[in-house]
Amino acid sequence: MTTLGHLINGVRVDDATRTQAVYNPSTGEVASRVSLASQATVEAAIEAAQAAFPAWRNTPPAKRARVMYRFKQLLEEHAEEICRLIGLEHGKITHDAKGELQRGIENVEYACGVPELLKGEHSKNVGPNIDSWSEFQPLGVVAGITPFNFPAMVPLWMYPMAIATGNTFVLKPSERDPTSTLYIAELALEAGLPAGVLNVVNGDKEAVDTLLDAPRVQAVSFVGSTPIADYIYGRASAHGKRCQALGGAKNHAIVMPDADMDNVVDSLTGAAFGSSGERCMALSVAVAVGDAAADALVTKMRERLATLKVGPHFDESNDFGPVITQAHQEKVCGYIDSAEAQGAEIVVDGRGVQVPGFENGFYVGGTLIDRVTPEMTCYLEEIFGPVLLVVRVDTMQEAMTLIDDHEYGNGTCIYTRDGEAARYFSDHIQVGMVGINVPLPVPVSYHSFGGWKRSLFGDLSAYGPDAVRFYTKRKTITQRWPSAGVREGAQFSFPS
Amino acid sequence: MTTLGHLINGVRVDDATRTQAVYNPSTGEVASRVSLASQATVEAAIEAAQAAFPAWRNTPPAKRARVMYRFKQLLEEHAEEICRLIGLEHGKITHDAKGELQRGIENVEYACGVPELLKGEHSKNVGPNIDSWSEFQPLGVVAGITPFNFPAMVPLWMYPMAIATGNTFVLKPSERDPTSTLYIAELALEAGLPAGVLNVVNGDKEAVDTLLDAPRVQAVSFVGSTPIADYIYGRASAHGKRCQALGGAKNHAIVMPDADMDNVVDSLTGAAFGSSGERCMALSVAVAVGDAAADALVTKMRERLATLKVGPHFDESNDFGPVITQAHQEKVCGYIDSAEAQGAEIVVDGRGVQVPGFENGFYVGGTLIDRVTPEMTCYLEEIFGPVLLVVRVDTMQEAMTLIDDHEYGNGTCIYTRDGEAARYFSDHIQVGMVGINVPLPVPVSYHSFGGWKRSLFGDLSAYGPDAVRFYTKRKTITQRWPSAGVREGAQFSFPS
Amino acid sequence: MTTLGHLINGVRVDDATRTQAVYNPSTGEVASRVSLASQATVEAAIEAAQAAFPAWRNTPPAKRARVMYRFKQLLEEHAEEICRLIGLEHGKITHDAKGELQRGIENVEYACGVPELLKGEHSKNVGPNIDSWSEFQPLGVVAGITPFNFPAMVPLWMYPMAIATGNTFVLKPSERDPTSTLYIAELALEAGLPAGVLNVVNGDKEAVDTLLDAPRVQAVSFVGSTPIADYIYGRASAHGKRCQALGGAKNHAIVMPDADMDNVVDSLTGAAFGSSGERCMALSVAVAVGDAAADALVTKMRERLATLKVGPHFDESNDFGPVITQAHQEKVCGYIDSAEAQGAEIVVDGRGVQVPGFENGFYVGGTLIDRVTPEMTCYLEEIFGPVLLVVRVDTMQEAMTLIDDHEYGNGTCIYTRDGEAARYFSDHIQVGMVGINVPLPVPVSYHSFGGWKRSLFGDLSAYGPDAVRFYTKRKTITQRWPSAGVREGAQFSFPS
Amino acid sequence: MTTLGHLINGVRVDDATRTQAVYNPSTGEVASRVSLASQATVEAAIEAAQAAFPAWRNTPPAKRARVMYRFKQLLEEHAEEICRLIGLEHGKITHDAKGELQRGIENVEYACGVPELLKGEHSKNVGPNIDSWSEFQPLGVVAGITPFNFPAMVPLWMYPMAIATGNTFVLKPSERDPTSTLYIAELALEAGLPAGVLNVVNGDKEAVDTLLDAPRVQAVSFVGSTPIADYIYGRASAHGKRCQALGGAKNHAIVMPDADMDNVVDSLTGAAFGSSGERCMALSVAVAVGDAAADALVTKMRERLATLKVGPHFDESNDFGPVITQAHQEKVCGYIDSAEAQGAEIVVDGRGVQVPGFENGFYVGGTLIDRVTPEMTCYLEEIFGPVLLVVRVDTMQEAMTLIDDHEYGNGTCIYTRDGEAARYFSDHIQVGMVGINVPLPVPVSYHSFGGWKRSLFGDLSAYGPDAVRFYTKRKTITQRWPSAGVREGAQFSFPS
Repeated sequence: MTTLGHLINGVRVDDATRTQAVYNPSTGEVASRVSLASQATVEAAIEAAQAAFPAWRNTPPAKRARVMYRFKQLLEEHAEEICRLIGLEHGKITHDAKGELQRGIENVEYACGVPELLKGEHSKNVGPNIDSWSEFQPLGVVAGITPFNFPAMVPLWMYPMAIATGNTFVLKPSERDPTSTLYIAELALEAGLPAGVLNVVNGDKEAVDTLLDAPRVQAVSFVGSTPIADYIYGRASAHGKRCQALGGAKNHAIVMPDADMDNVVDSLTGAAFGSSGERCMALSVAVAVGDAAADALVTKMRERLATLKVGPHFDESNDFGPVITQAHQEKVCGYIDSAEAQGAEIVVDGRGVQVPGFENGFYVGGTLIDRVTPEMTCYLEEIFGPVLLVVRVDTMQEAMTLIDDHEYGNGTCIYTRDGEAARYFSDHIQVGMVGINVPLPVPVSYHSFGGWKRSLFGDLSAYGPDAVRFYTKRKTITQRWPSAGVREGAQFSFPS
Repeated sequence: MTTLGHLINGVRVDDATRTQAVYNPSTGEVASRVSLASQATVEAAIEAAQAAFPAWRNTPPAKRARVMYRFKQLLEEHAEEICRLIGLEHGKITHDAKGELQRGIENVEYACGVPELLKGEHSKNVGPNIDSWSEFQPLGVVAGITPFNFPAMVPLWMYPMAIATGNTFVLKPSERDPTSTLYIAELALEAGLPAGVLNVVNGDKEAVDTLLDAPRVQAVSFVGSTPIADYIYGRASAHGKRCQALGGAKNHAIVMPDADMDNVVDSLTGAAFGSSGERCMALSVAVAVGDAAADALVTKMRERLATLKVGPHFDESNDFGPVITQAHQEKVCGYIDSAEAQGAEIVVDGRGVQVPGFENGFYVGGTLIDRVTPEMTCYLEEIFGPVLLVVRVDTMQEAMTLIDDHEYGNGTCIYTRDGEAARYFSDHIQVGMVGINVPLPVPVSYHSFGGWKRSLFGDLSAYGPDAVRFYTKRKTITQRWPSAGVREGAQFSFPS
Repeated sequence: MTTLGHLINGVRVDDATRTQAVYNPSTGEVASRVSLASQATVEAAIEAAQAAFPAWRNTPPAKRARVMYRFKQLLEEHAEEICRLIGLEHGKITHDAKGELQRGIENVEYACGVPELLKGEHSKNVGPNIDSWSEFQPLGVVAGITPFNFPAMVPLWMYPMAIATGNTFVLKPSERDPTSTLYIAELALEAGLPAGVLNVVNGDKEAVDTLLDAPRVQAVSFVGSTPIADYIYGRASAHGKRCQALGGAKNHAIVMPDADMDNVVDSLTGAAFGSSGERCMALSVAVAVGDAAADALVTKMRERLATLKVGPHFDESNDFGPVITQAHQEKVCGYIDSAEAQGAEIVVDGRGVQVPGFENGFYVGGTLIDRVTPEMTCYLEEIFGPVLLVVRVDTMQEAMTLIDDHEYGNGTCIYTRDGEAARYFSDHIQVGMVGINVPLPVPVSYHSFGGWKRSLFGDLSAYGPDAVRFYTKRKTITQRWPSAGVREGAQFSFPS
Repeated sequence: MTTLGHLINGVRVDDATRTQAVYNPSTGEVASRVSLASQATVEAAIEAAQAAFPAWRNTPPAKRARVMYRFKQLLEEHAEEICRLIGLEHGKITHDAKGELQRGIENVEYACGVPELLKGEHSKNVGPNIDSWSEFQPLGVVAGITPFNFPAMVPLWMYPMAIATGNTFVLKPSERDPTSTLYIAELALEAGLPAGVLNVVNGDKEAVDTLLDAPRVQAVSFVGSTPIADYIYGRASAHGKRCQALGGAKNHAIVMPDADMDNVVDSLTGAAFGSSGERCMALSVAVAVGDAAADALVTKMRERLATLKVGPHFDESNDFGPVITQAHQEKVCGYIDSAEAQGAEIVVDGRGVQVPGFENGFYVGGTLIDRVTPEMTCYLEEIFGPVLLVVRVDTMQEAMTLIDDHEYGNGTCIYTRDGEAARYFSDHIQVGMVGINVPLPVPVSYHSFGGWKRSLFGDLSAYGPDAVRFYTKRKTITQRWPSAGVREGAQFSFPS
């Protein structure tokens, strides 16, 4: 069995004092082991990144971009292997892994445009013969800490832009499914990144804390759960660092009475159950306005769920795969138990689903729960499983208040044909990413990703234009030249 | 004797349980007293701001801008009174107060452009018939905490942009010279701000901590010393808030051998001694490259200092006035003592200066200290007084290393005629605001103000374009309309 | 009777060889006479503008902006007099003149933001140690030629931005109502424009051709009818000039079956009859989809028209005033005659309207014509009078084809509640300014104004961001500094 | 011998009624023949482009960009063959062809960023509950007409951006060296452009006039000589089209007395003689300030010219190759004759150069002419050959006046170490592209290319950000939704 190490200064490094099992959730078996970096190992990675910084920040942006073009090519050429590795350790079906990778590649594409994106602001004559301009210079060493649910995409939200803008990077991916992440990082080196520009350390809290505390790490990007995001933001800030920390979500869809219900069911199905609901943008609560809409929704959704197929990652006929660990499987089922106990109606029950031949896999079947109320545990917390809750309300305002009162503010959606309802909703709702008839309103790579309330701590969102600003610091130069120089001939007017 | 209160929800409020003396530093007398707000008073201000928020964020930006146009007019009309109040409590000479106010007005002008500045990014067809756009929505209630040295300007760095972008504001100005700040805030209300949109609370640590801890305060802007900035950034961040905290400075000017020495002396004089050196952008260290440059600089500077006139704020023939308090006067003189004790050469000595008729004023004369070395106390710490240090080095690289090794990275300057030296310096120096033959490279209002290293904590700089982003949060909307609606005639093609 | 002259180099100049009557259309009487500038007079204005250019282009943008702030104040202070002058010569009711002036002031406000708007693009390290940036420099002397229908607003679309970006200007306003235009230009000088920066010449084709042919005029902005726009664009371009020439319009509103009909009637009334329909954005054709919508529209519109009041400009109870001249009055009535002759149904007939006490005024009453078809003269041509045509179609696509087939493409509108219909319409319609439930979709001052097809000739629209680019030329500077200069000590390392 | 046809609607089309010889200038032999398109053939290309437009403009920008990524890859993979074809028909040495191609590829890279570049401006609440945004929509069919001197690069300045922004394109390349252009266009199709999106027609004036006159062609981009640019701009504009027409140049370098003369000679050599001087950015006039500088320059330049090697394109040891035709060879030599006759000093004479084995090639040797004066023919006209003129002046101002008085204003350069001289020069010189110690200041692909005066007719420069605006038209949408819709429950609150 292989033990996965780290990638420091361009080479694979082992630091196998402490290791941890990585599972194949489709089968429930241990797939490999991963090293958990010590503080010294993480500091070696920081040192490598620091050493690589001066030359890399001096490399013209257009040359840095050229590495990104090659990286994109390599990602496309190795897509099949990447998706296989994602599926193996995460459990998501190949078609879903392809979607994840494609989204990641789009972030690399955005990084290709860095010469345009890094343009500073130039002002002529801020005073008489005085010019001033602002440049956006890289920070130095920056760190990224990423979750298990998108082992390819979320790291690609971070380091392509961080590196393209001139920084060097230390990535700490999830220890649950690190192989695809490391494989992709090696492709980035193959694309032409000098050694030390991108480093990967596998690890746990020790690695994280080392990154948060290290004086040479200038900024930290994090994606994960809200309690950890809160911790990371506080600790990194206490050290005077920049930090953007993205946390959890509870994304609601409002189903208005005028919604096209077939469209609702089609698109909600993917948004709620795709990737087993292990997405921070998963649509996990449908808020039906009026009982007529609720009844129609539940009826059609129940029919649809009957056709959903759960199973191992490599079988493309499956709609979704297992959840990440046995512990998480139990936790998800526990939420369904609590809903039942607290009086909700379990319309379709995914507990105890059996996948023949994969009895030890961490499967939960698609679950639909009606008549959920806001004080139920299943409503208050993020389930991160293939479970769709239905809440019934009487008015759109009531639905919006529900959403605004929730701790999280990541994504939300409204289903309607009505321009006014859509505009009112998108203007006033306290959520950062809003869909109008779009249940997974993940911004494209040339916009930025960010929730509101306790779904994001920090000033700036992830990837896209905000990433340029997060990974650079403004330098403003004001310039005046004294006269009486060569122009007036002081040095050359006398005959010689 | 008047006791200055607060401005909450559009009215002056007294909360005189605890008060503190405000001095006239030109005479050394107590000018008035200021209330120190209790937690309850600060919370009342936050409550007023919260209540005013919904209507104000719905007010079209062009209407909000119109208040700023009127505010600018009022500031210009009341300039004389404002400058008198600044001088009275701060001690700066009227011509200097006018400069401060003018800079503040320029920030109001920038806020007039908010309809342009708030433009979001619109993308057609991010997918087939799917559009996406990003809006920049206000945060809610935001707070500003400002220092004594620019009682008019620094608050105007903050609230015009915060308010123009749709937020409501609670300002905690310095308790040393609050009168002009409050006067200006009342002009903002007179210009048309609805009650509660701008609130001012006078106070001390209790007020500050209340703002940092209050859940309804979404963001904090701070300008002051680095230890406090560090504290504020950590505490605000621990509550999940946005924070930008600007701290201290030690701004160096490199004097190159090819510099136009008359220009150096002229511009350094203002930059070092103007406003008694109580500016975070004051040029307090001259680094001369080569002894020839150093000798010429010291000789000419000594001559120039002989002509500098210190005295009370209202006499426009004075070059600069007193420092803010007696304690600060003693602290500045203590730095000169330490320099002497540690072996530097006191070329011109401002200790014990006497201003006839104002013997109790807090005066320190212009001081020039040569042969300062990097380990001296006067070099390591921010003096914030009319004291210019001269450090002698042999090469430009040595000068740059000195600057980069210092804790602060606010402003810096190089004097040279050489294009290459200027470009190398401005590219590589680890300082946020760089002057080329400009000793006070304060960015104009349409750029942004921000130091590096321990001179600023946060992602985004103060005022200018960065302020738009600091005071707003991105909301990204993705929109797709289901077809088969009115366009295809579903609703109307039958009976006709 | 006064004869209005020109404003050249800061002074009023008479050139009364040729003059022309200016009418008061409310009474039909001659109000004054206007000089028609000779070629020599126009060349004197160009000469004055050329002479003023070097100093003005060197004036820092922030100082140029400050003139605009004062100009805005003066326009607000003199609003009443300006509106009186507009009404007197144009005939529009005071409330309408106020609206016009407000829109014009908003363009001055936009020009206040010119320091931000003129920012160039700065790129560090386009190659190793090579920087490059683009500046937007003024063109020199530029000219504006403006129509009678907005004597205040359309000139303010042009010269505030042209001047704020550093150009000097020669304006040739309409000879039908030049007094308010000249009055406003004098306020601009009073606000602080140096002599020669803004010049006004009254005149006719001789003046226009002189501007088009003069080598020192770098660019021409024109607003008027399409045949003249076509002529101007061709002739200015033949001389190698930049030109933007805005022409006529035939703006259609599609009334969908799901439209809120009360809202349609309310807003269409203002859009069709306001300012007697003498607006290039007047809504002159309502295209009803389905006979039910058409019948409802015609019925309600007929009722509404019964309440509309036409009369002299100074009576604020009037809804609209006379048209500009007797000839135009006859032309508008001729279109109604032709509609009748070609088989349309004259639902409300404004021909022969009498305004007691103002029998010689150039009045046409509000007119509604139903069952208009696309080949009728009244449909093909721009009427520029208080006449609303109704065309009946069966489908939305038919309505869109009608619009796309028309020669003009200035403005258009759809009335619907349906998000999909609105999005499809706004995406595909071949018109530059599109309203969704907004019948007069004139872009705000921080966007730009421009029609499509034969409604605008040129690359760039009027006012707003496009104006910055139209009135400036890009200069790109690429900079590399040779090393071995003062930085390496070449000049100072030797014995000292 | 092959006869090169056209590329229309995705297939090669022959139209061989009229053909013309294409030469191999290295040998003087005919290499192939090219078809000259009839009006009907050009109209077929326009028809194909028009037919392809609706689907292409509806293709999401990100998908259009993806074709550009693949196009870049194909260009890199086929670089060798492209450079061979360029050399064969143009005569430039392979290393020079590689440089040209690289610059062209950089324009394709810029087009990859089109999703970012096409972002419109979105304004929330331009009025109460009214939103407005501007989109940049493609024009339709646009045409490009390109010169012989950069058969790969100049077409790539145009169609990648035109197509990426959603237009379809008809290219008319130079008939002197069309093969590489056509080859590259086929790679663009291979990359995924649908048939009809990019069409190439070979031809002469008949083809050009057909493009200028065709109503369906919305815009024309041209690069060539000034008389033709003037003609094209006038004729296209007379048809109401957008046009940008780039013409000739006479690029001066000022050599200041403080310049690093070795750097001057090194960089001037490439800039004056590279590609035989057949570049619109060739540096063809050196203006030496002071006789000392002039003498040093001429002495060193003479030495350097002795080492320059001219010869056939395929021999990479050559510095430059032949000129394009025998007629052009004679014209260039005629300019040298005239300089001699008018009193200039022929320091190095390239007339009558012999290249052994290639006696019939169209060679002119590197030529240096001193003591040129502004009234000489060789100074007034563009030579477009390997000829460097030296003009001697006494002051920098005199040098600048010389440049400003010349008809052209494409590129220019100053050699100095002095920051003030460089800033003054770049600010005031009437030239669009300015180098500071950079003799060929061609803007990088993410800035834009454009001369001033008679070097460019039009508002907007070529490629880069200006290309986005040139190839799109602004559409501004203003949206208000009537209330009382589904949000208020009008449709669903009653039981049904």
